[in-house]
Amino acid sequence: MKCKRCGRNAFEKFRGTYYCRECLITKYEGAVESAIRRYRMIRKGERVLTALSGGKDSVAMLSSLRVLSKRIGFDVDAMFIDLGIGRYSRHSLEVSKKVAEMLDVRLHVVRLEDYGFTIDDVRGKVCSVCGNAKRYIMNRFARENGYDAIATGHCAEDILANLFKNMYSGNMEWSEKQRPRMEGFDRIVTRVRPLYEMSERENMVYVLAKGLPFLNEECPNAPSTKWKEIVYEIERKVPGFRVSILRNLARERRDGGDEEFRYCRICGEITTSSVCQFCRNVKKYARKNQ
Amino acid sequence: MKCKRCGRNAFEKFRGTYYCRECLITKYEGAVESAIRRYRMIRKGERVLTALSGGKDSVAMLSSLRVLSKRIGFDVDAMFIDLGIGRYSRHSLEVSKKVAEMLDVRLHVVRLEDYGFTIDDVRGKVCSVCGNAKRYIMNRFARENGYDAIATGHCAEDILANLFKNMYSGNMEWSEKQRPRMEGFDRIVTRVRPLYEMSERENMVYVLAKGLPFLNEECPNAPSTKWKEIVYEIERKVPGFRVSILRNLARERRDGGDEEFRYCRICGEITTSSVCQFCRNVKKYARKNQ
Repeated sequence: MKCKRCGRNAFEKFRGTYYCRECLITKYEGAVESAIRRYRMIRKGERVLTALSGGKDSVAMLSSLRVLSKRIGFDVDAMFIDLGIGRYSRHSLEVSKKVAEMLDVRLHVVRLEDYGFTIDDVRGKVCSVCGNAKRYIMNRFARENGYDAIATGHCAEDILANLFKNMYSGNMEWSEKQRPRMEGFDRIVTRVRPLYEMSERENMVYVLAKGLPFLNEECPNAPSTKWKEIVYEIERKVPGFRVSILRNLARERRDGGDEEFRYCRICGEITTSSVCQFCRNVKKYARKNQ
Repeated sequence: MKCKRCGRNAFEKFRGTYYCRECLITKYEGAVESAIRRYRMIRKGERVLTALSGGKDSVAMLSSLRVLSKRIGFDVDAMFIDLGIGRYSRHSLEVSKKVAEMLDVRLHVVRLEDYGFTIDDVRGKVCSVCGNAKRYIMNRFARENGYDAIATGHCAEDILANLFKNMYSGNMEWSEKQRPRMEGFDRIVTRVRPLYEMSERENMVYVLAKGLPFLNEECPNAPSTKWKEIVYEIERKVPGFRVSILRNLARERRDGGDEEFRYCRICGEITTSSVCQFCRNVKKYARKNQ
């Protein structure tokens, strides 16, 4: 298999086409750049703090933001939160340090323990306490250190899995919180999701192409993957579903205000134009012999 | 297998339990009644026009509404729209006439041809022209004949498949149009969906238990079933997803207005209560030796 772009030996497929290592990296970073520009995620001159866990998604994010920071013109630092999840947190920190060093990015390390507890101390609702702690620490640290935005490595599947989970549990205001850029207010710092349109598989292939280390270990508390499996299943049945729905979610919600209506000038029924759709269909399909 | 309710020979399973024919009928009609009451779908004294196609869903709807009309106190008539889809429309009409007769319900028959065309005349976008024609004729006929509400046989899978289709195609205002009762306005008649929480399989089993005829023939123009397959797949992975999401959809959308916020009296971060969740977690999990 040859690279479709330059003819060298192919490394892997990206969005249906084979590329060599270098071209795949170019394509991937171009796709992240498009998403950042499409959704106006990061503005020129902003100081961005990226959340690094050492997993493939956050490593892919940090690496591509590092490249794009020069192209678009923003600053990138990284932050690692040591949650105190035994061996898993120790490995995550090791990998994160190595990645930050290889990418020449400044890494801040904050320990949950400094606030008085670790995730290993938590009984019951571990994931919800952990999620809360990460959001809290990240927001406070970013604000106190003058960052304009926090970047998290949520990928397309994460966002859709969250959407389904929220629909299931009755949180119908989800769409507002699943945007690529959530503007900050008061003490809340702006949050951006540069990998909004990238799939897990794409992130993985990019990280491998870059030769970056990443932690290939699941968090021992990791929740069920059933929602992500649903996302994969739908994408298999309706290719393009994922990106299509993400772009729809990202659009501003129009005010849903009742549309103006008028009366069809042929039949008098309600319509939004001068002649209703039914009368237009009648005109179009009516038999000649009538 | 014995009926769990009365001990006679079981006929089929309904929501996980085996019932005899009579008890299954009672259970099914009770479930439709609960949904009608839960969502205040039909009010006492209303005149309801049910859309009958002859398929299992609309037959199940008409049969259960016939029974419930006495229990709740409303009137039920039926309406068949002859769309002029060759053999399929002829068979549908035959079955619908037989069902209406067996249930002793008045049946109105309206022919699309009387408006100047039939669905067989339509080239291209057949399903959209057909859907428009059905809605138009039903609404106009119901209004001109003094009905308070139109009942359609949309089942749980129809509504969820529509939801996904709409999300995919960017129609994010779907939730407003997928309610069990859509109040009428101006020249638009109220629409209700009595089978909102019933599955196709449940409708089928009920119709069989009742010994009613139904048309077991797909419309030759029937669209792809991929969206319904997605609904089944999700329900297999997350049992209860269907009903849970339908109940959430049916809830009034709160105005989403920005919730009041205040500052945590321990750390000063933003919260909706007096102490933020993070500080409550710190208090709960902080180590004794600190």
